[in-house]
Amino acid sequence: MSQFKYMLEENELPTHWYNLIADMKNPPPPYLHPATLEVMGPDDLAPVFPQALIMQEASRERYIEIPDQVRDVLKMWRPSPLYRARRWEKALDTPAKIYYKWEGVSPPGSHKPNTAVAQCYYAKEEGLDGFATETGAGQWGSALCLAAGLFGLQCKVFMVTISYHQKPYRRIAMETWGGTVVPSPSTETKAGRDILAVDPDTTGSLGIAISEAIEYAVTHDGFKYSLGSVVNFVLLHQTVVGLEARKQMEMAGDYPDIIIGCAGGGSNAAGLIYPFLKDRLDGSRPDLRAIFVESTACPSMTRGVYAYDWGDTAKTGPVAKMHTVGHGFIPAPVHAGGLRYHGMAPSICALLDQGEAEARSYHQNVCFDAAVSFARAEGTIVAPETAHAVRAVYDEALACKEAGESKVILFNNSGHGHFDLAAYDAYLRKDLPDYVLEEEKVQRALKELPQVPA
Amino acid sequence: MSQFKYMLEENELPTHWYNLIADMKNPPPPYLHPATLEVMGPDDLAPVFPQALIMQEASRERYIEIPDQVRDVLKMWRPSPLYRARRWEKALDTPAKIYYKWEGVSPPGSHKPNTAVAQCYYAKEEGLDGFATETGAGQWGSALCLAAGLFGLQCKVFMVTISYHQKPYRRIAMETWGGTVVPSPSTETKAGRDILAVDPDTTGSLGIAISEAIEYAVTHDGFKYSLGSVVNFVLLHQTVVGLEARKQMEMAGDYPDIIIGCAGGGSNAAGLIYPFLKDRLDGSRPDLRAIFVESTACPSMTRGVYAYDWGDTAKTGPVAKMHTVGHGFIPAPVHAGGLRYHGMAPSICALLDQGEAEARSYHQNVCFDAAVSFARAEGTIVAPETAHAVRAVYDEALACKEAGESKVILFNNSGHGHFDLAAYDAYLRKDLPDYVLEEEKVQRALKELPQVPA
Repeated sequence: MSQFKYMLEENELPTHWYNLIADMKNPPPPYLHPATLEVMGPDDLAPVFPQALIMQEASRERYIEIPDQVRDVLKMWRPSPLYRARRWEKALDTPAKIYYKWEGVSPPGSHKPNTAVAQCYYAKEEGLDGFATETGAGQWGSALCLAAGLFGLQCKVFMVTISYHQKPYRRIAMETWGGTVVPSPSTETKAGRDILAVDPDTTGSLGIAISEAIEYAVTHDGFKYSLGSVVNFVLLHQTVVGLEARKQMEMAGDYPDIIIGCAGGGSNAAGLIYPFLKDRLDGSRPDLRAIFVESTACPSMTRGVYAYDWGDTAKTGPVAKMHTVGHGFIPAPVHAGGLRYHGMAPSICALLDQGEAEARSYHQNVCFDAAVSFARAEGTIVAPETAHAVRAVYDEALACKEAGESKVILFNNSGHGHFDLAAYDAYLRKDLPDYVLEEEKVQRALKELPQVPA
Repeated sequence: MSQFKYMLEENELPTHWYNLIADMKNPPPPYLHPATLEVMGPDDLAPVFPQALIMQEASRERYIEIPDQVRDVLKMWRPSPLYRARRWEKALDTPAKIYYKWEGVSPPGSHKPNTAVAQCYYAKEEGLDGFATETGAGQWGSALCLAAGLFGLQCKVFMVTISYHQKPYRRIAMETWGGTVVPSPSTETKAGRDILAVDPDTTGSLGIAISEAIEYAVTHDGFKYSLGSVVNFVLLHQTVVGLEARKQMEMAGDYPDIIIGCAGGGSNAAGLIYPFLKDRLDGSRPDLRAIFVESTACPSMTRGVYAYDWGDTAKTGPVAKMHTVGHGFIPAPVHAGGLRYHGMAPSICALLDQGEAEARSYHQNVCFDAAVSFARAEGTIVAPETAHAVRAVYDEALACKEAGESKVILFNNSGHGHFDLAAYDAYLRKDLPDYVLEEEKVQRALKELPQVPA
């Protein structure tokens, strides 16, 4: 066999992030204030986010320089490898060429530290003492705990209860890196106590955990809130993935026909896809297909509506125009905790709405079918979230076989599943449920959207 | 900061393994037959190991070619990175320069697949159906399950009971890659049943699990036995680690004064150390220090004797001259399951005996002290076994600080601790015991050594 992986030198790490918003003809509309539903300015966001990130959120600059101190930390594991999945291609007997960017090489094992490091750098520059945040499966929380420690910041993590109990190892990893973790909803915030009063046995949700983290941040001096996905600046920081992948695809002598990523809030998918999607938006690659893959348990893109909604359950965070199943929707307890978010990154939603990208959803068992096939061919046991991207690749590769087409497929292998093996155990024992979406729950949640004047 | 990591291209993967035995003035003496205690020939080993490996075991060739099919699989993750631990140096405030080879990038997360892949290749060439093996913490078993699957072989793993229960995730990983895992001692072998009859609550040991795996292999058609450490051919396969590291240290412009590895059977340490130790044996680097680090719970090198002993508890495997605490010794249930082996690689023992290397041991808490310090500076959460090497580096780095010397220290970061986080949890909660070695247990076990005529 010829080459399997394409590596870049440390000094080839990108020097600038790429801001797709600058190249969108119709960028997503601005955020609205959670109480007044008026357009929100930088000042309104100041109590929540560090100033530099608020500026990045609204930026229309195409390229934004990555500070040297951020690049120095990213060099702990970046540039990450790009793989050609030759063994999996053979196992699937497909004429498709499958490439993947492997983000599991970071210490927390996912793409998440790409933005955690940047956020902690700006927080430290601003003189903060620490961050509060939410986490689902724990990938984001562990990334922020590591990054916070490296910059001498504290980190307080509200971890969705179902994951806190399903994935104790992630909690331990966060504590090993020096963070503090509580299950959410907790009794430490009003938002958490209110939820527990109504439903003491709730499995929790990212929406609730976000509410708790925001409340904790704004009520504790020296703390601000850190978000691991959804917003523009997070997607911006993740573009190092796609910028590296562009160089590596050039080394491989290929250009993708289809790019695929799993999407909870959308950051890993956008991080890989945006630096390529630029070519579609400017007309040089009009046929490039971008596919965002979500869980059928929380189908914001494939079942939700494109409308304004609060980003969090307690309605304390910004209101954004996005695909949503409603801020009050509590998804079934699928193992892909990172895909249990009711909304989606506003920029991805705008692209979907403008026909520049596609969305699809899968139940969890077919994702594990594909993930086990991938593990046995390529070695890597991927995270349950990533398994959704792997399934979409699997389907596209088999479609190529059917059609006898040798398309080039690129996907973001966004993280390993080492802390999610209980899910593989359940799958292998045929004890993993596929939850039927409760349509009334969606209908009920969608009735609670804010009434925004047109 | 300047460079953090040194990478090699895929085509720089070594083409040959290095066989230190060829450069030893006094190689370790041959194995003895487990029943007759007569010198054992290749024919005696034939029922147990594939023929090609038996030939490698006895080889006096300095360089042995790595088959292309083996290199192709190793390329899934090799060459592995060499890191300069700049952040940890700063945290320790040491003038020492600390480098580490990072073997956690393999899918099973350790150095173990370096030999698993080679062994499965030769087994497949010989027309075998599968391998039986033992595993402690599960690093070896998971490596063999992955490699076996890639070559279309079955894999039956006897996993030391204490680890089977302490580390369920490793068992699930093995099953995800297609292997079959049972806790050892099991009721599937006579060796296992005999032990259970005497002590139904035993925590198990590597010595027992080896006996079970050998028995399973020789009583099942198409199966042979695979060993993950100790013997010459395994150490040989691990020299890709040190051969790569030599090139990478050259890139960094440094040469190690001290090389450190943790040692259960000794393969990761030897894999890194032997390609450098060549320079000491040939006189070009007479001051090079090699340090093998073991657990105080199973101190074969620092407390045992240098004598002939059986490699397994049921006395069915070869008898080797090695440092041993006795084949019947059951170590305390430390989390570093891979360091709970009663013996040590015969070639390492010969080097220790000849004054060419050093040994030391640590209790587990001081190892986790160092490992948490390392994790918070370098990101990586290392395996409990590896934590023993990390502790030795820590001590050497502080000795450099004391003495004001800027020595170059290189160690093998042999694997991640993602499946061992229960140990970190216990450590962080100050609930991790340091077991006092029961001297009478050692004395009793040492009385059972074979009576070999001088």
